[in-house]
Amino acid sequence: MTKYSQIFLGTAFSAKSPKEVSILKDHLFCINANGMIEQVVAPEDADYQTLLDAYQGQENFHRLTEGQYFLPGFIDLHVHAPQWAQSGTALDIPLSDWLNTYTFPLESKFSDVDFAQKVYQDVVSTLLANGTTTALYFATVHKEASILLAKICAEQGQRGLVGKVVMDHPENTPDYYRDRDTQTALADTEEFIVAVKELAKTSKQGVYPVVTPRFIPSCTDEALQGLGALAAKYDTHIQSHCSESDWAHGYVKDRFDKNDAFALHDFGLLSDKSVMAHCNFIDDADADLFANTGTAICHCPISNAYFANSVIPIAHLHAKEVEIGLGSDISGGFSPSLFDNARQAVISSRMLEDGVNTKLPAEERGVSNSRITINEAFYLATAGGGESLSLPIGRIEANYAWDVQIIDTTLASAKIPVFQTNEELGDVFQKIMYLARPENIREVWVQGERVHSRKS
Amino acid sequence: MTKYSQIFLGTAFSAKSPKEVSILKDHLFCINANGMIEQVVAPEDADYQTLLDAYQGQENFHRLTEGQYFLPGFIDLHVHAPQWAQSGTALDIPLSDWLNTYTFPLESKFSDVDFAQKVYQDVVSTLLANGTTTALYFATVHKEASILLAKICAEQGQRGLVGKVVMDHPENTPDYYRDRDTQTALADTEEFIVAVKELAKTSKQGVYPVVTPRFIPSCTDEALQGLGALAAKYDTHIQSHCSESDWAHGYVKDRFDKNDAFALHDFGLLSDKSVMAHCNFIDDADADLFANTGTAICHCPISNAYFANSVIPIAHLHAKEVEIGLGSDISGGFSPSLFDNARQAVISSRMLEDGVNTKLPAEERGVSNSRITINEAFYLATAGGGESLSLPIGRIEANYAWDVQIIDTTLASAKIPVFQTNEELGDVFQKIMYLARPENIREVWVQGERVHSRKS
Ligand SMILES: [Zn+2]
Ligand SMILES: [Zn+2]
Repeated sequence: MTKYSQIFLGTAFSAKSPKEVSILKDHLFCINANGMIEQVVAPEDADYQTLLDAYQGQENFHRLTEGQYFLPGFIDLHVHAPQWAQSGTALDIPLSDWLNTYTFPLESKFSDVDFAQKVYQDVVSTLLANGTTTALYFATVHKEASILLAKICAEQGQRGLVGKVVMDHPENTPDYYRDRDTQTALADTEEFIVAVKELAKTSKQGVYPVVTPRFIPSCTDEALQGLGALAAKYDTHIQSHCSESDWAHGYVKDRFDKNDAFALHDFGLLSDKSVMAHCNFIDDADADLFANTGTAICHCPISNAYFANSVIPIAHLHAKEVEIGLGSDISGGFSPSLFDNARQAVISSRMLEDGVNTKLPAEERGVSNSRITINEAFYLATAGGGESLSLPIGRIEANYAWDVQIIDTTLASAKIPVFQTNEELGDVFQKIMYLARPENIREVWVQGERVHSRKS
Repeated sequence: MTKYSQIFLGTAFSAKSPKEVSILKDHLFCINANGMIEQVVAPEDADYQTLLDAYQGQENFHRLTEGQYFLPGFIDLHVHAPQWAQSGTALDIPLSDWLNTYTFPLESKFSDVDFAQKVYQDVVSTLLANGTTTALYFATVHKEASILLAKICAEQGQRGLVGKVVMDHPENTPDYYRDRDTQTALADTEEFIVAVKELAKTSKQGVYPVVTPRFIPSCTDEALQGLGALAAKYDTHIQSHCSESDWAHGYVKDRFDKNDAFALHDFGLLSDKSVMAHCNFIDDADADLFANTGTAICHCPISNAYFANSVIPIAHLHAKEVEIGLGSDISGGFSPSLFDNARQAVISSRMLEDGVNTKLPAEERGVSNSRITINEAFYLATAGGGESLSLPIGRIEANYAWDVQIIDTTLASAKIPVFQTNEELGDVFQKIMYLARPENIREVWVQGERVHSRKS
């Protein structure tokens, strides 16, 4: 009976379906040497007591205390790692100023590997402290610093999917910040892919290279074509931005006489391992193409309020069976927390449903049936993210990675308002989703390893 | 030179106007025995060095460390204190279910003073930990428990403005939770006012009774009339809900053939000390009436996403010179933090400006010139709240109360992403407003007294 590397005892919440949450009360979670959940055992199951007797008291047996709960680690599908250095600033200015006065000058500094080290160390540890166990990162155009980001993820134990950004189009990128030329962009990308795949061999939780055209406006046709070929050659994940704003959506239509989704598909950039950020303006044909190719949408609700001119109809797209996950979009979105983004996803969906303009009659104000529940937002942040990446993560069930956050609701300095000892667990779950702070996240585990903890 | 009770040295941010923030770099803040700021001294001022020499090293001299900043304490203009017990739950269900299945049954439990004690202690300390130095509370219909809430504010050192809720209308209140009858409602309110005024005599920071008709639908005309008379007799603050949703706005129109604002005015409920929550559907005539009577709007952006069917046009109403402050509206809003609400105020205003429905052309989607900046949201949470209450609070300047929060940006467990030692203070301010967590709030002072602190 020393079959398992570790056993955890406690109550967990995990997505059962986009609208339903499983409550696994006082279950045993049996983890193997690879950090995978091998078995989940309910109190009424036959071998519950046997397992308890065999493991209780051992060092590898972990029992949650009263008021603590397991949640799956969050999966952040869209983080511009370098932009962490400017998070929270300049959100009151127009997009073009934001890019040219803040973002591009900042990203260009990541030619300096020491500066990159400082920012990347901090963004990875900050995301872990916020319960994000897997992150899909945009780095910068710089190959060295991008490899460094993958290394830092590997070292800190976060499951990092990292892209060296490609932006080679002379018209929509500044002189001081673009790939030298298309050939260099593709060659650097290929070297980057090879280097990260090499690094992955020694990383338990996995790090992954991601083919990353910034977005169509910043790339030449040749670069887009070449990146599609590289993704196929190395079977990598792919990420970009898609139909984010009126401007971006309109630009691609002008250039290709089709929507982003179809243009990206033509370049071989839509696959089961593709994640497209934002997608606010995709139409039903685009959505069907996403569903058919297995391409996922990354919803970034906080960022969208600043830069996307609209609210993406998540309920509608979920009903069309497109895979959808959640992203912080640091620093278009200011918050490194997917709790904050899940909350905003619900809020934004309510605003889409009810509308915003008080001068319009209620029946003309919004778009009916647009709301999503907090359960659905939780799904996006966990199981939806795992499906989007086609990885066995985001759920607390057998054959998934042991990627969890341990939430303490009883913390004196950040008490979740539970005043009844017999409070319904469904209500406790909602309170956690709406009120948990980084403080309440006492431990974070990735692939069976503790990667973050707080002293009490 | 022992004129001042305390002197603080550090950099402070304070609202200069709705759109501008003053940055008081390395200033001295001189506090008198009443807890008022008597003088603010800049490094270039003549007596700076003299004061420094006289006080430095003494116990009553407080110097911020590198990376720490003063913000004014926040002023939360709308908190349903009893609802803290259900904060974060039931936000996915319709308003009528929310009221009848959750809210009214919960509030009715506050006949039990022990239960009230538990919840009220926790909500007051939680708000203090979130930097809220002044709060305008709805309690419940129960006189005893409402007085208890004022007592708890007095004890914990928070500036509490507390209302015993009146709801005597047999049609829009449940059997088990309403005032016994109109006379009792008014008599209890008067006793409540007298008791809290008595309590105030021994409270340094002040506690205040507030005349509190829940909203027009839950009150009879006689109650509304009687409450207006009590407010005049005792010169109290007044609070209620006004034109919150399509339903509430329509109900009052049906009953009085006029908008909420004018109906409330007829009952003597609009004054310089009145604060009306939400007000999403007020029109320009209502706004003028507010401006003329000195009535303030309490904007509750998180709550509005769930229950107000719209976004209130804050920029427009500010331009019309209506006083506006910010409210958490616990538990219609889930968050006890005005940082969260300030962020949402900006986000909601952007959604109003850009619109939400991707199917509409950009020019028909939103309402132009609706956005507010993070500076304006900060103004709402601080100076705007003080003006709304007609109290000398919400600013760090002479003749205001020393109500402040000390923010630490360097905390290892919740680092605000400042990577340059010479980062512009305007950017630091924005990062604090967007990224600060309760953890970053190291100390909270009200009226010159430290009422909350965290160990390092
Ligand atoms: Zn992005
Ligand atoms: Zn309210």
